[in-house]
Amino acid sequence: MDSHGKNHQKEHKHDDDDVSLKPVTLSKYSKRVELKTLLERSDRGVGLVGKRVVIGGWVKSSRAVKKDSPPPPQPPVASAVTPPSNSSNHQASTTANISCTEMIQSKMNIFRKLFDVLSGGGKTYPIFDKPELAAHKTAKPPEYVIYFMISDGSSVSNLQVVVDSTMSSVPATQLMALGTCIVAEGVLRQPMAASTKYVIELEAEKLLHVGTVDPEKYPLSKKQLPLHILRDFSHFRPRTTTVGSVTRVHSALTLASHTFLQYNGFQYVQVPVITTTGFGEMFRVTTLLDGTNDKEEKKHVREKDGFSIDTVKAAIKEKTKLIDHLKRSDSNREAVVAAVHDLKKTSDLASQLEMKQKPKAATLVKPEKLDFSKDFFGCEAYLTVSGRFHLESYASALGKVYTFGPRFVADKIDNVRHLAEMWNVETEMAFSELDDAMDCADEFFKFLCKYLLENCHEDMKFIAKRVDKTITSRLEATSSNSLLRLSYTEAISVLQKTTTRTFETKPEWGVALTSEHLSYLTDEIYKGPVIIHSYPKAVKPFYIRLNDDKKTVAAFDLVVPKVGVVITGSQNEERFEILDARIREFGFTSEKYEWYLDLRRHGTMKHSGISLKMEHMLLFATGLPDIKDAIPFPRNWGKLNN
Amino acid sequence: MDSHGKNHQKEHKHDDDDVSLKPVTLSKYSKRVELKTLLERSDRGVGLVGKRVVIGGWVKSSRAVKKDSPPPPQPPVASAVTPPSNSSNHQASTTANISCTEMIQSKMNIFRKLFDVLSGGGKTYPIFDKPELAAHKTAKPPEYVIYFMISDGSSVSNLQVVVDSTMSSVPATQLMALGTCIVAEGVLRQPMAASTKYVIELEAEKLLHVGTVDPEKYPLSKKQLPLHILRDFSHFRPRTTTVGSVTRVHSALTLASHTFLQYNGFQYVQVPVITTTGFGEMFRVTTLLDGTNDKEEKKHVREKDGFSIDTVKAAIKEKTKLIDHLKRSDSNREAVVAAVHDLKKTSDLASQLEMKQKPKAATLVKPEKLDFSKDFFGCEAYLTVSGRFHLESYASALGKVYTFGPRFVADKIDNVRHLAEMWNVETEMAFSELDDAMDCADEFFKFLCKYLLENCHEDMKFIAKRVDKTITSRLEATSSNSLLRLSYTEAISVLQKTTTRTFETKPEWGVALTSEHLSYLTDEIYKGPVIIHSYPKAVKPFYIRLNDDKKTVAAFDLVVPKVGVVITGSQNEERFEILDARIREFGFTSEKYEWYLDLRRHGTMKHSGISLKMEHMLLFATGLPDIKDAIPFPRNWGKLNN
Repeated sequence: MDSHGKNHQKEHKHDDDDVSLKPVTLSKYSKRVELKTLLERSDRGVGLVGKRVVIGGWVKSSRAVKKDSPPPPQPPVASAVTPPSNSSNHQASTTANISCTEMIQSKMNIFRKLFDVLSGGGKTYPIFDKPELAAHKTAKPPEYVIYFMISDGSSVSNLQVVVDSTMSSVPATQLMALGTCIVAEGVLRQPMAASTKYVIELEAEKLLHVGTVDPEKYPLSKKQLPLHILRDFSHFRPRTTTVGSVTRVHSALTLASHTFLQYNGFQYVQVPVITTTGFGEMFRVTTLLDGTNDKEEKKHVREKDGFSIDTVKAAIKEKTKLIDHLKRSDSNREAVVAAVHDLKKTSDLASQLEMKQKPKAATLVKPEKLDFSKDFFGCEAYLTVSGRFHLESYASALGKVYTFGPRFVADKIDNVRHLAEMWNVETEMAFSELDDAMDCADEFFKFLCKYLLENCHEDMKFIAKRVDKTITSRLEATSSNSLLRLSYTEAISVLQKTTTRTFETKPEWGVALTSEHLSYLTDEIYKGPVIIHSYPKAVKPFYIRLNDDKKTVAAFDLVVPKVGVVITGSQNEERFEILDARIREFGFTSEKYEWYLDLRRHGTMKHSGISLKMEHMLLFATGLPDIKDAIPFPRNWGKLNN
Repeated sequence: MDSHGKNHQKEHKHDDDDVSLKPVTLSKYSKRVELKTLLERSDRGVGLVGKRVVIGGWVKSSRAVKKDSPPPPQPPVASAVTPPSNSSNHQASTTANISCTEMIQSKMNIFRKLFDVLSGGGKTYPIFDKPELAAHKTAKPPEYVIYFMISDGSSVSNLQVVVDSTMSSVPATQLMALGTCIVAEGVLRQPMAASTKYVIELEAEKLLHVGTVDPEKYPLSKKQLPLHILRDFSHFRPRTTTVGSVTRVHSALTLASHTFLQYNGFQYVQVPVITTTGFGEMFRVTTLLDGTNDKEEKKHVREKDGFSIDTVKAAIKEKTKLIDHLKRSDSNREAVVAAVHDLKKTSDLASQLEMKQKPKAATLVKPEKLDFSKDFFGCEAYLTVSGRFHLESYASALGKVYTFGPRFVADKIDNVRHLAEMWNVETEMAFSELDDAMDCADEFFKFLCKYLLENCHEDMKFIAKRVDKTITSRLEATSSNSLLRLSYTEAISVLQKTTTRTFETKPEWGVALTSEHLSYLTDEIYKGPVIIHSYPKAVKPFYIRLNDDKKTVAAFDLVVPKVGVVITGSQNEERFEILDARIREFGFTSEKYEWYLDLRRHGTMKHSGISLKMEHMLLFATGLPDIKDAIPFPRNWGKLNN
């Protein structure tokens, strides 16, 4: 397969003088043209007819037509694996150029049988083993024109690529399987058959690379899998059109966030992930349990004959000395790591040899009592719950700051709105109060909606078709109206007034609003996003500013239909005495929050900020029902793939 | 202090009809004008003379002039705390309007004495207790015009704010201390004294808020602290002009990275921080050691009289049932967290009561043997070392992708180039080889240099003055030249040829290049950044593509003078058999890398990518010598503040 790539490079050099043979190169840092640059031009690519290009991508669908048959009447469906037309031996022999869709309609049972054979049939391709076809193995194989729909993920659109089966050393069935990677060079032309779907296709002249799939093991080749099954294959699922589109929308939201905030004068600040401060259920970060994870690797160290345990121990001593020397002499990390790696291999060998002597000895470290002063940082360390504490430090110097990073909660909850690792955009503004934070949330949220409408047209169209028809109108309505703001007290009063509905948690002043309450308010009463502010102090964290009524705090949530809270925000307590008292009220120790209290001791000011939950925003924007589909590699209680 | 803020708001409403009294509001989400919008206009603010504004910021320097004295002849120095002119009782009585600089020059000893009293003298302000001044306490205090230099962090520039001491209820000394937060409303005017430094100043009419500092405890009030001392106060150091500028440059680099990559067709992908895969020394993420960290909190739960252990236990049972119910009913996280928090308080109370019965019982969990199948994720979990593995999965579907996130190495190294938590910009490009990755690194790196020159003029000027005079010329030279590329073999040969220098690690083919080698090549031989590629396979990780010589791999480093490696890059192995063999060659198990191998089983293609170390880039751009100053909250072996 690789020799193709080589030829390609050589040919390029050779062709340098002949302009007509030189491929158009419109893609940076990649040896092919991105399909987006061909298909998303205003002329949909017509102006490029006759140009030579190299494209690369993955097979979305394919079908074969016997040579000298007329060109196919319509494009194939994008979602199914299409068998090559040598399926003709299954009664379809008279209609070699039949499309997959038609075949499904007319010969469903036959197709299913064939499909099973194709996708689950092991490493060989059994249809070629049928008596009629076996002859082909010795004789000349049948010649087909194969029509591929190829996606390269640069946009939702696919390019039709026409390949002559004689061009390939890989059997047609293998070439045509869903997910096969193809790099082809050829000339852009208008399709032979009239089509309303696309105006150009590629007539391939050579295949530069083919990366096959193993249909026995490739999960996506089975059938169009529902999103919840795809989650078990998070490394493959971006190859589906839906997850591809969602990822591009996610990417757009990220750029839109940076753009909005920097344009409005916010400075980006890199807040840490490992921290000493936090609250709630947190993940601990440690290196104290080292040794337990080497077990597996040790099993695989191959024993070297003739090495005595003493020789190996002497080598360990020497290598340890070298590492100490490298560390002292401020060498670069790589040299140290290489030396450490080398040492590790040697000491693994030593353990291996020692284990042979005492085969029953346990390799597990047994931490009788953990001493965190001996841990990596010399103290207990956790994964951050929120970046706003650290942001406050920088807002107290730079005014308006923001960050974007992972936040972790170790709550043992597994539902469609919860992740153990989420990514938040957080801001903090000096000289700012609750209403400023609500303004910021309101405008930021609407900007993101508008940005998607203006910049992700094709992907939003596809997601609307596949996931939720209402998303476009929802985003349009949201981006053009100011959001309703009501206090928690008003919200409770609205909930209490309802006669049509009973709630599991009775809406009484003082309770935390449940998802059932929020859903009733946004889905049924206001039919759109609302901001709820001024919560009872007991249902929000200790650091939020106490209002003058001493009962409520200056916090708010931006709540949207179906999803729930997308943005939280608050004016945090700037008064030393009150913050100090509230820390103790919650049963925490002031020592842990000394540096945070420091910000109130010296040059304190009113300040507020917001926290946008990126994955929840994506749920709102796409209509996806489960948050596990709004992040590439979800991390959840009891589940950690990859 | 807060009543000021309140008045402010009320007055705004009151003034709504009187346009002449209405402050100019140019800042979003904050109740003041950002200084940048006043000072960085092309007219340096002259066009705003006569406008009413509210500003907020922190005192950088200050000095007092007795009322009815002529205006001060020149602006104060920006870096020192200036005593008020009631220092006049220390021989300076005849020159009440003397500037701090002059005073330092003429009366150094006296100034020092006064300075010590001011900055270290406890909570009262002893200079007022001198016999001469004690009288003022009962009589009318002396009246001063105070000249502040105020910074709000929106830019490197300060605004001079002129305040009449009678305006403030806070004593002048307290008001004038370095770091005091001041929100003032007033009118912009041209300075009374001719100045070349600035063309507008603010004549304050009211102080809306004062956030004092406690000079006894405020570290920055002592003197101008060197960077390595400031590191102990990472929550305060952005208030220094240097760290403020470095932060703004960091922010610009972040936006520039997203802009460059998205403009060039890369999609942002959110790769995970918690992972199962990796190599080298890694941090473990766990919740198995829970309980050990509750110790402290339990100490502080106040015992409620009259609660028997049985009452409390019954309450725990009820509350646990409620939580189970909430979790099952898909409630929002907040409700669950509130309930869990409530339960925790109750069960802490229970422990407290039980401990009273058996005061010697240990509260530490003693994990005799850790069973990671019982850990949060049901398996062993680590903090990610690199995002490129996960990016490869998305590049195999979307073509060109990138990410920006924290990367962790638990190597016990503490030097000026190493952090345990670093932030990298990583890319992965499908259909791309080593030379494409080098092109990407080259252009990305130069784009960042150019971006800073064009967008951070004022901050770069300040950093050049304070940290490294050569940075501007270095960035200019870098951004306009193509980077030299040489192979590892060529680099070794250059190192071997030197006669003027001996290296601790002898440059022989096969050794990892040390920082000493890299420094010699970039600082002495090429005097600028170079790209070194095609390293021996043993010094690079297992996943890098094996070259045809079977001895080297397709990796490169972009190395810059003084700093070392800023970008690493590689074409990773796309051939299943070779990757599988190399995993075993390194002593790892294939099982751990199954999903990564999967990408080679199904639709594989050539691909390459880069990894830019953001903090190292910032070192290159600013000339800072220690990486701990290139990230707000550095995480290092044996050290974890905040």
